[in-house]
Amino acid sequence: MSRDPNCIFCKIVAGEIPSTRVLETDRAVVILDINPVVKGHVLIIPRDHYPQLRDLPDELAAHAGSLLPRLARAVVSAVRAEGSNVIINSGGVAGQTIDHCHWHVIPRFDGDPVHWPWPHQAYSGDEMARTASRITDLLDPA
Amino acid sequence: MSRDPNCIFCKIVAGEIPSTRVLETDRAVVILDINPVVKGHVLIIPRDHYPQLRDLPDELAAHAGSLLPRLARAVVSAVRAEGSNVIINSGGVAGQTIDHCHWHVIPRFDGDPVHWPWPHQAYSGDEMARTASRITDLLDPA
Repeated sequence: MSRDPNCIFCKIVAGEIPSTRVLETDRAVVILDINPVVKGHVLIIPRDHYPQLRDLPDELAAHAGSLLPRLARAVVSAVRAEGSNVIINSGGVAGQTIDHCHWHVIPRFDGDPVHWPWPHQAYSGDEMARTASRITDLLDPA
Repeated sequence: MSRDPNCIFCKIVAGEIPSTRVLETDRAVVILDINPVVKGHVLIIPRDHYPQLRDLPDELAAHAGSLLPRLARAVVSAVRAEGSNVIINSGGVAGQTIDHCHWHVIPRFDGDPVHWPWPHQAYSGDEMARTASRITDLLDPA
């Protein structure tokens, strides 16, 4: 079990900092966010410490992913929401505030306080094909 | 293979509508979003049609999840980004525009056009404990 002694999520996983848990598995704990974007907002926290998504073993990312349909159903039902967002913020520039990779599951209502605009950029010429080639070339083998 | 004859993503998976693919597995295809939030934005599209995350079999959610670390690394490197967001929008209220469950992987830069505020609600009294109990009670067995 890898752990960072200064990480608040490692302390929550170890029970050294209290949390309100809704689910535990052998590889992750799911807690209520104490500062919910919308009430019912939960966090999937892998028990092992990996700073960012890019650092996570594929099988641990799969395990966390496998919990999402159940959690989305339960969270939405529990607060009588109409939908949900799943979000991973990786890196400070992307809104990550605790450097222990985690998933947000946030219930959504019509009229809730969330306003996330969805801007669009445009590819020009062969830029889209070149971008795809670069991604494909950089993908690690499965 | 479940399919919705009117679904644009089912048509993309079948090759009836062109797309720019960066990865294919037996259960999912990964394409560039033609209207990227930030250039390099990719979509993981399960081959089977499930409208929302809540409808997805756990093992298919696990498969898609298993692709995220590799994709995050490749997308960020390809466009020389500094971080990334992974997002699933489930339901129109949550920003879902195509009713075939999919994952967004969006590279992020300092100064990019994305501004996603992170509001906070506050629980009062025993509301947090009651919310957790409701979620736990509503979770389907693993």
